[in-house]
Amino acid sequence: MDKDIFCKIIDGSVPAHKVYEDNDFIAFLDIKPISLGHTLLVPKKHYEYIFDLPEELYLKIFFVAKRLAPAIQKAAASIQTGVAIEGFGVPHAHIHLIPINAINGVDPCKQHPETEENLVKMAQEISKLLNQ
Amino acid sequence: MDKDIFCKIIDGSVPAHKVYEDNDFIAFLDIKPISLGHTLLVPKKHYEYIFDLPEELYLKIFFVAKRLAPAIQKAAASIQTGVAIEGFGVPHAHIHLIPINAINGVDPCKQHPETEENLVKMAQEISKLLNQ
Repeated sequence: MDKDIFCKIIDGSVPAHKVYEDNDFIAFLDIKPISLGHTLLVPKKHYEYIFDLPEELYLKIFFVAKRLAPAIQKAAASIQTGVAIEGFGVPHAHIHLIPINAINGVDPCKQHPETEENLVKMAQEISKLLNQ
Repeated sequence: MDKDIFCKIIDGSVPAHKVYEDNDFIAFLDIKPISLGHTLLVPKKHYEYIFDLPEELYLKIFFVAKRLAPAIQKAAASIQTGVAIEGFGVPHAHIHLIPINAINGVDPCKQHPETEENLVKMAQEISKLLNQ
């Protein structure tokens, strides 16, 4: 089976605007964000569906999400970080962490391409906040 | 401060189509679901924002979500259970668990009222699957 785009980001063959990485997970900016700062948190090991993750990894990913959320919120100057999980885009389990300011902020159909410059700046800002 | 609607469901003063309950959480059907089977998983203790939950409770809620997801998926005959968290509807932390069949299945603006009969049947079906 061909590698999915997230597996390619994980193995380094496709670049990404990385904001976080540890042994089990990587987080990077969505290049077509719902709002700038929209981050994808992904287990390095390939699982198709979030609920397929073994229990320890499943709990760990939400622990990492809780750590990322305030940095994303602050970097994007948003009211909160919304969470969305749907497995129809890329067949590799992932959590969307989305800076939102209104109830319709997590509509997965409202993605739009973002400039390289904005993505670079936002990734740096989130990473910096995470390392403070 | 007036009690929010979820606090009233928890204290029993407002009825709900309950599908699950334990010491820490209650889960019931959304009466204006994105799709029939759309369930709200709520901590009994009042916290406004999901990331405000203390660590143990925060991890527990996702553990309960993982248990509920396959029952919701099966009862609704859907492809998967999507997850969405946004805090703009009711100011009491909650997780949306939504039977979805397509990428736009978690759009929070696509809610519609559901009949009492369908809600009763669906709640019974999910509860039954959880107790198997």
